[in-house]
This record gives sequence, C-alpha cells and structure tokens, in this order.
Amino acid sequence: MNRIIDLRSDTITKPCDYMKRAMEKAEVGDDVYKEDPTVKLLEEKVARMFGMEASLFCVSGTMSNQLAIKAHTSPGNEVICDKSSHIYLYEGGGISVNSLCSVKPLDGDYGIISAELLKGAINNADDIHQPISRLVSLENTTNRGGGAYYDFEEIKKIKEVCQKNNLKLHLDGARLFNALVETPQSPEDYGRVFDSISICLSKGLGCPVGSVIIGDRQFIEKTRRLRKLMGGGWRQAGSLAAAGIYALDNNIQLLKEDHRRAKQIGEILQASTFAKEVLPIATNIVMMIPADGNANEFVVKMKERNILCTAFGDQLVRFVTHLDISDSDLEDFKMRISMSGEKINNS
Amino acid sequence: MNRIIDLRSDTITKPCDYMKRAMEKAEVGDDVYKEDPTVKLLEEKVARMFGMEASLFCVSGTMSNQLAIKAHTSPGNEVICDKSSHIYLYEGGGISVNSLCSVKPLDGDYGIISAELLKGAINNADDIHQPISRLVSLENTTNRGGGAYYDFEEIKKIKEVCQKNNLKLHLDGARLFNALVETPQSPEDYGRVFDSISICLSKGLGCPVGSVIIGDRQFIEKTRRLRKLMGGGWRQAGSLAAAGIYALDNNIQLLKEDHRRAKQIGEILQASTFAKEVLPIATNIVMMIPADGNANEFVVKMKERNILCTAFGDQLVRFVTHLDISDSDLEDFKMRISMSGEKINNS
Amino acid sequence: MNRIIDLRSDTITKPCDYMKRAMEKAEVGDDVYKEDPTVKLLEEKVARMFGMEASLFCVSGTMSNQLAIKAHTSPGNEVICDKSSHIYLYEGGGISVNSLCSVKPLDGDYGIISAELLKGAINNADDIHQPISRLVSLENTTNRGGGAYYDFEEIKKIKEVCQKNNLKLHLDGARLFNALVETPQSPEDYGRVFDSISICLSKGLGCPVGSVIIGDRQFIEKTRRLRKLMGGGWRQAGSLAAAGIYALDNNIQLLKEDHRRAKQIGEILQASTFAKEVLPIATNIVMMIPADGNANEFVVKMKERNILCTAFGDQLVRFVTHLDISDSDLEDFKMRISMSGEKINNS
Amino acid sequence: MNRIIDLRSDTITKPCDYMKRAMEKAEVGDDVYKEDPTVKLLEEKVARMFGMEASLFCVSGTMSNQLAIKAHTSPGNEVICDKSSHIYLYEGGGISVNSLCSVKPLDGDYGIISAELLKGAINNADDIHQPISRLVSLENTTNRGGGAYYDFEEIKKIKEVCQKNNLKLHLDGARLFNALVETPQSPEDYGRVFDSISICLSKGLGCPVGSVIIGDRQFIEKTRRLRKLMGGGWRQAGSLAAAGIYALDNNIQLLKEDHRRAKQIGEILQASTFAKEVLPIATNIVMMIPADGNANEFVVKMKERNILCTAFGDQLVRFVTHLDISDSDLEDFKMRISMSGEKINNS
Repeated sequence: MNRIIDLRSDTITKPCDYMKRAMEKAEVGDDVYKEDPTVKLLEEKVARMFGMEASLFCVSGTMSNQLAIKAHTSPGNEVICDKSSHIYLYEGGGISVNSLCSVKPLDGDYGIISAELLKGAINNADDIHQPISRLVSLENTTNRGGGAYYDFEEIKKIKEVCQKNNLKLHLDGARLFNALVETPQSPEDYGRVFDSISICLSKGLGCPVGSVIIGDRQFIEKTRRLRKLMGGGWRQAGSLAAAGIYALDNNIQLLKEDHRRAKQIGEILQASTFAKEVLPIATNIVMMIPADGNANEFVVKMKERNILCTAFGDQLVRFVTHLDISDSDLEDFKMRISMSGEKINNS
Repeated sequence: MNRIIDLRSDTITKPCDYMKRAMEKAEVGDDVYKEDPTVKLLEEKVARMFGMEASLFCVSGTMSNQLAIKAHTSPGNEVICDKSSHIYLYEGGGISVNSLCSVKPLDGDYGIISAELLKGAINNADDIHQPISRLVSLENTTNRGGGAYYDFEEIKKIKEVCQKNNLKLHLDGARLFNALVETPQSPEDYGRVFDSISICLSKGLGCPVGSVIIGDRQFIEKTRRLRKLMGGGWRQAGSLAAAGIYALDNNIQLLKEDHRRAKQIGEILQASTFAKEVLPIATNIVMMIPADGNANEFVVKMKERNILCTAFGDQLVRFVTHLDISDSDLEDFKMRISMSGEKINNS
Repeated sequence: MNRIIDLRSDTITKPCDYMKRAMEKAEVGDDVYKEDPTVKLLEEKVARMFGMEASLFCVSGTMSNQLAIKAHTSPGNEVICDKSSHIYLYEGGGISVNSLCSVKPLDGDYGIISAELLKGAINNADDIHQPISRLVSLENTTNRGGGAYYDFEEIKKIKEVCQKNNLKLHLDGARLFNALVETPQSPEDYGRVFDSISICLSKGLGCPVGSVIIGDRQFIEKTRRLRKLMGGGWRQAGSLAAAGIYALDNNIQLLKEDHRRAKQIGEILQASTFAKEVLPIATNIVMMIPADGNANEFVVKMKERNILCTAFGDQLVRFVTHLDISDSDLEDFKMRISMSGEKINNS
Repeated sequence: MNRIIDLRSDTITKPCDYMKRAMEKAEVGDDVYKEDPTVKLLEEKVARMFGMEASLFCVSGTMSNQLAIKAHTSPGNEVICDKSSHIYLYEGGGISVNSLCSVKPLDGDYGIISAELLKGAINNADDIHQPISRLVSLENTTNRGGGAYYDFEEIKKIKEVCQKNNLKLHLDGARLFNALVETPQSPEDYGRVFDSISICLSKGLGCPVGSVIIGDRQFIEKTRRLRKLMGGGWRQAGSLAAAGIYALDNNIQLLKEDHRRAKQIGEILQASTFAKEVLPIATNIVMMIPADGNANEFVVKMKERNILCTAFGDQLVRFVTHLDISDSDLEDFKMRISMSGEKINNS
C-alpha cells in the first residue's frame, strides 16, 4: 500500500537497465560541432523512419514544437490549432514569446480538428487588419483531448486545405507512436503529409530526456540555428541519444500494453463510486469527471491512497499509463480504488 | 442617385468647416519636446474629463490600445478579452508582435463578457506551463459585436475579479462616447474603474486623425516612451489636437442622432427583401444577415446602388452611421433599398 | 533680447501661412482604406521623385526607419551601421524591440562609414553562433555626426559590397535634401542605389508632421501592413500630406540658406570665448566643444541668453539652423554671444 | 602522428570513466515536476558554493546567460558589456531575439572593462530617445579576450557604479573556475557581488552537457518559467547532473594543469616560425597572430599536422587546453610544430 502508483504523466518513467547500458556505452562528441556520432545516428534513424530529409535532437518536446513554429513563421503570422493544443495551452505562451505569432484556437472535438473547421478559420491575406494565417498545427494523439487520435483521411483533407491556402502543416507528435500502434499508417505516411513533425522520446518511449524535430534539410538547418540562440545547443548529448535509439528499437510495441492498461483503469474508475463519467479511452490517457465535480479534491483523495493523478482545470482528472506501470500496479490500483471513501495510508 | 451613401465605417468622416477653422487657428509646437500647447490642452482636457491623472494623444486607436497592452504586460503574459475584440481580431496580431503576449479569447455575447466567464479563464500563476494572466480588456461599445454596450454593474463585477487576481483592466473605448450618451454613467465613472482607457477622436466624433490613451501619470510616461520607439512620436500635432478639442466640445451629443438613424436603417433593411435578420441595434452599428446568406454578394449589390457597407466574414454585413450621414441620406437609402432587386446605376 | 533663438533642432519649425493654406484646402479621405487623395498624391510624387515604385506616408522618421528595418529583416538578423546612427542611438532601441535584430556599430568618421569598414564587419552566414548580417543602413546627412554627407562614390562601393554579400541597403534620409542641395546627385541617383529610403518632411522642410518611406511596391505593401500593427495607420491625413507637397515644391532650395547660416554660427562661436573647437560644418548642423569642456553647463549659459541648443553627451553641443531662423536672428545671436560671460536676461 | 590533438575548445572533452560511473549510478526523477533528486543536489551544491539562494541546471551556457538577461530586463532595455563578449558575439544575437534588448559594446582590453568605461556608457533614463540601461554583464575569464581575468578590485568598483545607477550585474562565468584557481577569491566572494552568475560544467570541468545559473530565489523561479517556454525544461536530467557534481568535486584543481600546458603551447608557438605574436596567456586559452597574417590558412596548415585549432576572425588563432590534453599530447604538439612547413600526414 505504501508504494506510490504514479499516473500523473508518461514523462516520469526512468530508464530501464538495458537503456542505461546503451547510454553508458554510447560514443560521444561535441554536437555543437556536429561531431557526436550517436546523436547523428539517432537523427539519421528518425529521419529515415519518417522518410524525411533530416532531423534534430532536442532537449524537450516544447523545444521541438517551438523551433518548428519559429522556423515556419514570421512575426505577425497566425497559427491555427485546436483550442486545447499543448502548443497553445502548455508551452508558456511560447508561440507569442518565441515567434511573435497569434493563435486562432479552433473548437475541435477531443483536441481533433476537421478540414471543414480549418477552412472557415483562414484569414484573408489581403486584409492588413488581420494577421496572416501561416501554420496549422495538429496534435496526435491529443493530450488535453484525452489521448484521441486522428482519422488519417481527415489529415489528408486538412493537408489539401493547407496546400490551397499556402499554409504549412506541423504535427505535434509527442505521443504519435501511441497513434501509430493503433492505426494502419506508418511513420512514412505521416512524413509524406506534414512539413514538420516533432516526436518525444521521454514520454511513452521511456527515455530520460529528449525529443526530435523532423523536416526537410533547409528547415532543419534553420531550427539548428534557432536552437542555438535559444540555448538548446548541447555538447556530448550522445548518451541521451543512445537512450532514444534503444527506445525506438525496443519500446514502441510496448505502448499497446499501456493502452490496454488505460482501458482497465477506465473500467475500474467507472465501476467505482468516484467517477461521474470516464471519457472515451483511445490510447494511454484516461480522462475522468469526478462524481462530486471537484477535480482538485479528487486528486487529494487519490493521493491519500498513494495514487498520483492530475487535475486538468476544475472538473477533469487525468491518469496516464506508461512503461513504469505494470499489471501488478493495476491490481493495487483496483484494490485501493475499491476501498471506497476511507482514508487509508494514515490508518 | 449618384451620390454615394458611405456606411462602411464612422472613420470616414471629414472635418466640418468649424473643425477646420479650429485646426487652422491652433497654436503648435514640437510635441516630442512636450511643447505643443494644443496637444497639451487636449491631453489635460481628456484626463480631467475622465478624472484620471494624464493622457497621451496618439495617431490611432490601434496605437493607443497597443501601447496600453505593452505598458501593462511583460512578454509571456496573457491578455483576456472577448473572442471578437478589435485588439485580437483587427490590430494585425499586435498583441503578439508588440507585446509578446498570448490571448485567451472568451465566448461572450455580442462582444460583451461577464465576470463569471472571466473567473473561469484566469490561469494558475504557479503553473509554469501556462502564461501568466495579466490584463483584461473590454470593448465598449463593441465593434464586431454590433455596437452593444456593457451594463456598468457587470463592469464593476469584472473589476472586482481583476482586483482579486492581480489583473489590470483596460478599456478599448474607441466608441465609448456612443455608450455614454445611452447610459447614465459619466466618463469619470469609467475613470474610476479602469486602469487605462483609449478613446478615438476619428470615429463618431468626426476628427481626421487621433486617439487618446488615458491612465495614471506613471503609466502615461511609460506609453510615451513606448510610443517613441514604435515611431508614434510626432512634432507639431496641434492642429489635429485642436480638432479633438472641438469634437469633445461639440460632437458628443450628436451621437444620439447617429443612433436614431442606425435604428431607422435597421427598420428599412428589416422591411426589405434583402435581410434575413437584423441584429439588435444599440448604438450606431447595424449588423445584418442577408436573405441569401452571402455577405460579399450583398455588399456588391449595395454598391450597385451606391450604398457602401462592409462584409464581416461570410455571413454578416455591417452598416455604420456617422456625422456625414444626414436624414436626407436616409431618405435616399430607403428609396434605393426599396427599389428591390434590379441594377440601378448602370441603367 | 527676450525673443528665444531656438537652435535645438530643425524639427521645431512651425508651418508658414502658405503651408497652412495648402493644409486647409487639402481634399481628404480615409487613408486606411487608401482613399485619401492628398496622401496618395504625396506618395506618388515622392516615389516618382526618387524613381522608385512606391512610398508610404508615415507619422515620423523613426516610424519610417523602423518599418524599413522590420520589412528587410527577420528576428536574429544583424543590422550594420555607424556607431552614432540615429537608428541605433535615438530610436529607443527599436531595432531590438521592433525587429529583434542585433546591431553591429561601425567606427566611422562623423557618422560616415566606408565600404572597407563594411567588408570587415559581415558575419559568416554559416556560423550559427553569429546573427546573420542582413541590412546596412547609412545616414545622410548625419545627425550625431554633425551634418556630414557622403561622397556618392563611396555609397556606390558600399552598394557593391552589399550586392556581393546579399545585404539590403537602407538610407536614413531624414536630412537627405540637405545633402542633395550640396552635391551634384539627384534623388533618382539615390533611388537607383538604395533598397529603401526614408525622408523627413518635418525637419528642414518645415512640415508639422511626417516622413515618407520609399521602395519597391512589394516592400511598401509590407511596410503598410507593419505600420498598421504598430498603430501608425491614420485616417484623414491629407492635410498633413498637403504640407508635405507644399514643402517639396517650395522649401528644398531654402536649405542652402540654412547651411549658409550654420557656417555663420560656426564662425561666431569660433570667434567667441565659448568654443574650444567648432567641428567642420557641412550643412545645417554645428557641433561645438565648449571651452570649459562641459556641454550641459554651456547649454544653461546659452539659455540665460535665450539661445537654445542641445548637449550631445557630456562634451558636445549641437546648434541646428532651420526655416524659422532668419538673418536677423543671426544678428541677435552674434550680439548675445559676444556679450561674453555675464547673465543677461535676468538683468 | 595520426592521433588528433584537438585544441579547438574545452567543450570537446568526453567524460572519464569515474564520471561515467557517477552518471550511471545517479538517481533520477522528473525535473519538470522538480523531482529529480540528483538535479536538486547539484542545484543546492552550486548555490551553497557561491553563497547564493538558488540555482537552475540548464542545458548550455548560452541558455543560462540568455535566461539571466531575459529575467533581469524588459524589452527596450540596454545591456552593457565588452565588445568581444560571448553574449554579444556568439549567442546568435539572442539578446535581441530573446530579450528585445539593445547592446552597448564597450571598448575594453582583452574583453575586460573598467568601472570608468562603464560610467560613461550609461544612458540618461529620462531621455525617451534612448533605451534604458539596465544590465551590465562581465565575462570571466574572457573567451574572445584570450582567457584574461578580472582584478577583483575592479569588479567591486563596477558593482558600485551599478548600484548607483540601478543596474543589475551579471557574470558570464563559463570559465569562472579558471579565474578562481589563479586568484585569491572564493566563489562566495563572487556570489556577494553579482546579481546572477552562470557557470559551465561542459567546458574545463569536463562534463558532457550542462551549465548552472545562480541567483536569488525569486530570480531563479523566474528563469525556471522562462526556461520552460524556451523549451529548456527537461525530465530525468539526473545523470547529467551527477556528472556536474563529480566535476565540481574532482576537476576544479585540474584546471591549473590546463593553464600550465597553455603556457607551454604558447612557448612552443612563439619559438616556431609560425607565430608573429602570441598574446599574453592567463589561463587555458592561447591566442596567436600567425606569421603570414592569415588565420584560416594557418588552421589548415595545422590540420595537416592533425592539430586542430580555431580561427577567430581573419587574423587570430585560438588554442584551448582541457582535460583531454595530456603532457604527452604536448610532446607530440611540440614535435609536429617544429617539423616546420612540410606536409606530414600525407607523406
């Protein structure tokens, strides 16, 4: 009962022993001079995986996204995305601070927007009162949207709208592999549609640190320059890159297990007295509306049971499964949840 | 029939002869050195009118608003306003470009937000993922919202929420005098509630150029510095200031006439075959949904009748009354509208 | 003795009666809609004068310069200019704030740089540690440099360096007409060499307000958009434009008189006990090192004689001649200067 | 002869086996949640070392410096530093891009400025034409200045000027430990004088990645927020932090050896036919003017000998000693240098 079951985020995973061994053995060099062989290996591997020209290993998903936005836009442009996008809500207002761009938040479903919604949102480029629409950013799977993923046909329609309107298309793929294991598309299918894609290694894939931004060669060289002035250039990053290579080789298929466990968590919560509603579960994220309507109080109640989860606003609670959550954790989770109401760990 | 009835905006007015005489007689000096006596007169007059410490004469309402936002915020802060606010939609994305701030657009009614809506929109200042909520901006009357105005009691509630949450409160008062002539409040009532107020002289008041930003002395000195680096410092602006003084002395009460005429326009349109719906008319703006649902086509049809109006998006058309629209123009307007359907000026 | 002789700047001139008549008669319209006929006349006249495609009438020289810099650059670029340039020293740090660009200040002579100096200052575009050199800005005549002007042959050499290195070339021509009346070149000669030129109407030319930025059509449309979001769009600016047209037609040749008077002032100062050194006088600016080495104290002493001048730093004093300084003012000036030492206006 | 002697920079060092073991054993957690115990240990250790309240572990020295500048300033402020400062020349123009601040580069000696020079460079805060002077940044030891270090008495005088003029004082201490091992001061002496200090772990101290920014608690919380929106927040960074802790415990005294070897390199070069002049050597950096005056050609010539060094501009060459350069490397270096002129590795 004293062990903490930490379902706050899939960012909290710690490298397993195999990954640590890979890190320890990694050959390193000075990446600012483009001389870290393991970083180069990772960057080539990821670019090839997505059928794109080049990629850049970055310290965080926020850095990858912010670099992409900055590279695609000029000050005074507008970025179009769902109202609950990570780039808009959870990157510190970086779109304005780093790129001096406006945001037009769209009213999508579970973080998913449609080509139709996009069409109505593009500014008339001749009207100098309005910022110039320049970039569309999708998130797949969605974070705040509860792990939902796109129908790839809709993405292709969105791409058409972008092409007709001279808009770039970026993918915040922090959890793209969670979508990929559930759908028939390959990374290359995504590479063909998007102008840039960011993926995270330190979420479901279990790496300690890192994200990769992928695009064509010119774009990547631009992000490399921008990364430098934002302070994201690093030296012997090879050990972190080695973790990324290990994860891409070994951990993608394990995401399926996370998804199975997320569904189990959803069932346990739904069957409990705690949940008013559990939202549809598509991947590794469970969004729940507590029975008493108060997300923060619910989080405290769970903490008393040594279960950690996150309040999203006043009324939503998020649970995330990940590599460090096992089936035996789920057993415990079920037991602690079903011991309804009473305080436990203080008894 | 050939005379154009221009109802696109109240910005298009030309100075009357009395105003021109005032402009011609104005004593001038170098305002960058704070030595233009007429500019100083105007700035003192406006500050006194609103019971505030100081004011600054600016070249446009956009400049006044953008200076206020910049003076109240730091990069990475968030501005909260209605989703149809002029500062968000029609100032070229200036909030991001000039102030590096995010925008949280609220889903108000006719451009009017409530204290309740505001409460739910304030970010948790301790969460470093989110921009810090710093400034609330109201627009009164609303432009895109069709000339609606606030219930002053709601403004006071909004002020309370701001005070509890360490938020500054700005008023985009481009058309504030249109609200003032319809409500019991005085400019001083507004001065007591807002941290800064911008008013426009070149809209309903009929001046050729100019706007004034009002606030406390420290704030105004800050906007003066920011105005300089944005290129808004001007030299012998006294003749334009003289127009402003004339307008404040003579034209405020005339706004009532604009409002009466706007209602008449609404009735004429409603009675015609053109309108599917005329939205509620509160001041000098008439918003109409055309019968055939196509705003741009409707604007063209009106142009054929030498009537100018503006499409707002695909489905809304705006008519604005102003000093240069007389009752005899309304007679003409009625006649041209009632000659349904056929092309006229080409016959 | 009580009349003030104001030699602080040529910005302080007040419109003469002829100019005021032109302003009063001007036809006006809404310039945001591009419908002010007098503004359009001015913009066409200036573009034609310089043999360039288009121009934009702006509220100040700072706005013209800042718009040009913003239109030519992207964030992270570098602007190269003389260390005493107005754009670097006296525009509020606008290069950083408005354009997010670095400045590389060169060690020119009297504000004049050479092609040789420029060559050594261009960054290696492949080195991501350094900002990308993108824009060279010259000032002619120089303000802080004491009214010096360029040898046009050097400008052509600078242009060559720019072309070889993919650099844009901007001219801050706030006082360009002062150079033009002293040299054989025409405005069109300048138009052929520079990518953009700003000129001021409210300095030596005697207008109350205004500046014009000149360039190709695409550049000007870009500045129009940027002007809007910086709040520089104005409505019925035609009366100010009319002053500009009057000034271009009537006041350029009068600058010769200003230059003659500046030389006389230099002689009077040099002959007095006040001056340690009067720097070479090329146009309408006189720079003097006071005998006792203290610029601020000297300015106070002059003020006691109702002579106004400006301290530039601790050791330099600037006098500027302009349209409102007559030969009889010079007589007075000489008399007041020669009444050495004692306080006068208090006696 | 085939082994490369890499003297380009002290950033290129690779972790030794002891450091790698420390990295491998490090306990980690999610640092965005402030839960990485090793990161916290490092941050506490560094803060205590300098007698300051708090510190933040960052991905690079550029990020530490840029965060400090951003936290101390507002857009439109001015940063004062030596003309050859790393923050001005080699951080991609980040002062403008990240902080929208101007730079006033001072003409110091070997990158060292004086209190006297500073005094004359502070803008008059009341003059709205000029940016407000806000931050002074020193670099110790200097990079471009050839590893020179400050006399601490001069730093104290600079501090006094800062205090009198409401200026913050930042130290770019990328190579501060190189100064500390040569002078009587302790880190705490520096902590008492500076408002913020950045130190690098991945230069002379031999860590793979990382830098620490140090200051008071409020400042550090501000940098933490800014780091997040610049994408510098990282997750399980503990292994990198463990390297930092190891380095601080074990590698500082080894810098003395680097300095001794740098002096030897200087002597070897001076005695060779290659050098026109070797500049004074204070720490681990050797700056040389090649005999034939061409830095780039000299670098190529050295490369043919498998010696790597860096051209700084056209006429200066830099050699840097570090942990991965041994006395036997120096033997080799001497031999390769003395084999004057002929190509070697191709024979």
